Amino acid sequence: MQTFGIGLAGMGNVGAGVFKHLTLNRALLRERLGCELEVKKIAVRDMARDRGVSVPAGLLTTRWEELLDDPAIQIVVELMGQKDESLRLILGAIERGKMVVTGNKALLAEHGQEIFEAATKHKVPVFFEAAVAGGIPIIKAIREAFVGNHIRSIHGIINGTSNYILTRMSESGLGFAEALAEAQAAGYAEADPALDVNGGDAAHKAIILASLAYGFWVPAEKVFVEGIERITSSDISFARKLGYVIKLLGIIKADAGGEIEVRVHPTLIPEKHVLASVNGVFNALAVHGDIVGDTLFYGRGAGQDPTSSSVIADLAEAAAALQSPRSNCGFIPHGLYGTCQPIDQIVSEYYLRLTVEDRPGVIAQIAGVLGALNIGISSIFQPEGEEGETVSLVLVIHKASNAQMASALEQIGALPCVKKAPRMIRVENFA
Amino acid sequence: MQTFGIGLAGMGNVGAGVFKHLTLNRALLRERLGCELEVKKIAVRDMARDRGVSVPAGLLTTRWEELLDDPAIQIVVELMGQKDESLRLILGAIERGKMVVTGNKALLAEHGQEIFEAATKHKVPVFFEAAVAGGIPIIKAIREAFVGNHIRSIHGIINGTSNYILTRMSESGLGFAEALAEAQAAGYAEADPALDVNGGDAAHKAIILASLAYGFWVPAEKVFVEGIERITSSDISFARKLGYVIKLLGIIKADAGGEIEVRVHPTLIPEKHVLASVNGVFNALAVHGDIVGDTLFYGRGAGQDPTSSSVIADLAEAAAALQSPRSNCGFIPHGLYGTCQPIDQIVSEYYLRLTVEDRPGVIAQIAGVLGALNIGISSIFQPEGEEGETVSLVLVIHKASNAQMASALEQIGALPCVKKAPRMIRVENFA
Repeated sequence: MQTFGIGLAGMGNVGAGVFKHLTLNRALLRERLGCELEVKKIAVRDMARDRGVSVPAGLLTTRWEELLDDPAIQIVVELMGQKDESLRLILGAIERGKMVVTGNKALLAEHGQEIFEAATKHKVPVFFEAAVAGGIPIIKAIREAFVGNHIRSIHGIINGTSNYILTRMSESGLGFAEALAEAQAAGYAEADPALDVNGGDAAHKAIILASLAYGFWVPAEKVFVEGIERITSSDISFARKLGYVIKLLGIIKADAGGEIEVRVHPTLIPEKHVLASVNGVFNALAVHGDIVGDTLFYGRGAGQDPTSSSVIADLAEAAAALQSPRSNCGFIPHGLYGTCQPIDQIVSEYYLRLTVEDRPGVIAQIAGVLGALNIGISSIFQPEGEEGETVSLVLVIHKASNAQMASALEQIGALPCVKKAPRMIRVENFA
Repeated sequence: MQTFGIGLAGMGNVGAGVFKHLTLNRALLRERLGCELEVKKIAVRDMARDRGVSVPAGLLTTRWEELLDDPAIQIVVELMGQKDESLRLILGAIERGKMVVTGNKALLAEHGQEIFEAATKHKVPVFFEAAVAGGIPIIKAIREAFVGNHIRSIHGIINGTSNYILTRMSESGLGFAEALAEAQAAGYAEADPALDVNGGDAAHKAIILASLAYGFWVPAEKVFVEGIERITSSDISFARKLGYVIKLLGIIKADAGGEIEVRVHPTLIPEKHVLASVNGVFNALAVHGDIVGDTLFYGRGAGQDPTSSSVIADLAEAAAALQSPRSNCGFIPHGLYGTCQPIDQIVSEYYLRLTVEDRPGVIAQIAGVLGALNIGISSIFQPEGEEGETVSLVLVIHKASNAQMASALEQIGALPCVKKAPRMIRVENFA
């Protein structure tokens, strides 16, 4: 039986999981693949660290460069999660004809074009299922299962930490800070949770998905990103009154003309929509293809085991590609789409929470601003039980461009009767 | 650019969809595949029938045998939905080295072993994504995305017609016959809906999924199948009182020892479970892998467009395999699993609806029978508002084998206080 040698770069949570499961399910993989996958070398930062799995000491090295030089290694698994070093490793592997498996979403979002140009030039596939949504095979679905479809839209809950925080806020009325502290205590959030809660991590994944769906690498600066840090428990309960829940969504859409939009922000979605019931650290992606229609993919979006499952699937693909060389290197650019709409032009619906003086005439002033800007209001309500000089006022706004709304917010914020900066959250009704 | 010739056998709903979408999305497919897929010949029964798509008359033939003899055809798409003729076409294509794409679930469930032995012998891949769950890429997920996983269980809503009927019964309190008539009027059920409502169609799909997951062709006689014909609106409302909804599920499980179970039957599932919210003609499959954990795949399980999407994905795979021959022919048998538990030995929980005399002592008699058989009761309730000499009595039964329950039903049915044959539906709590 043929054996393929693996060089594992990075032995953190996911790397240790890959090693563990390759060992545990070795007999199964051998049967299904008809070959052996054998880890030949593991590059780590710290030789002494306990990783919870038993690794023969001879496999470890602190120099990832050794993976490139070792002729017994045909597949390099990049799980270092670095920028410069990871890029050097991946490009080095490609140049030497070694296949690459990576879960490095930040790197792909930034250097995807460079990496796949090199891959195509050297005819070396690069696999990256683990980079988006952990164990959910969304890359495979978009690239292969829906290959005949124009992807009309993808709506994804693609950051488990922020989904856990929003779920806890929704279930228990916690504030953002308390829910974040709980997520950290439960091990779901890093000591520095910035990338999870500010939408940055979800944006990396949205960039990869959009690039794959539309055949060009979407530049990060074209992607609008807003995090969940300013969502309050009031927003969540007001949204519920309106029949919505709040989720951090990656939203990717294309119109018939080939223009696309890519954005990440907290979003009110109808409580009946299937994404609304995706709770805790789970991820889910609703994909709409022009032929297949509505589909949904759900699973754990992070963590040692689910992410290992995707890395191992990619290793199996790499082994198949080593046995039978393929022309598809994992990303095929084309020119059928191309322009990425700036956020200003994107049309959406909106939830608006204002803090206003509690006196007659206030609603008329606000409605007047919106009316003058030709923005329709679909509902207004004033939550019960608030007392004091100021009260909340909640509006749901009909379709308007983000530019229109920015003007409206500026004018409304300047009204004397409006006492705090208006709070706006986008609404998605999947119409 | 290389062109691959397709022979399409069958131009019904799905065949017409494949032809239509290959034409509409031709530019996209060309970019993504780097080759052309061109339909060279179409075998139909009736040359004159209007199929809603414009087909050059020269492509049509009434003899499917011509597809085998045409050297311009490298891929045969079998969508005739026949038994003998479809089998002869598929085996004939394999013998001639032509790749096969089929959506014929009944044929695969019955002749899968023979087909894939021939495919392996002749090194010709056979693709069958369209055979299970329409547009949902569940074959690809199990075979490729979860290749490193032991599949612990699959719970699938894999027949859209029966799901539509149960949904309508649940939403509107319709009886089975009325809901079926509605499904037929809406075009969701055939004039002869037997295979949809009796579980036969779902069983074909469950056999294919289980065979793929466990590496051997599961014999149909080992699969327990019960349909939804006897579900009443009372069952649905009593189940709801207990916090459950009723779905026709395909249930596939494996234990650590390698024994598997495959069954299709109406099932009470907790209303909070994500499968409970899969309504109408939609399909969904919850797959639990030992590494990836819980996942779910959702989409349209039938219909021209979603099924075409899967056929086209398989055509793309076939084209890739023609460019770069692969050793995996679509099904790799192995011996890690093997025994299929008979239904008698399978342990489950149960919902039991009895029609009993309305007098004291009845519950004691019934509980006595169950107690003597060592079967625990987890709840008993008598629905309100029933009047007359007999009333309903609903029990939920703890885990017991199907054999134990069969004895219990026989004894309970023979009690003088029990006036009709007991009605039993299995319960799945996903524990």
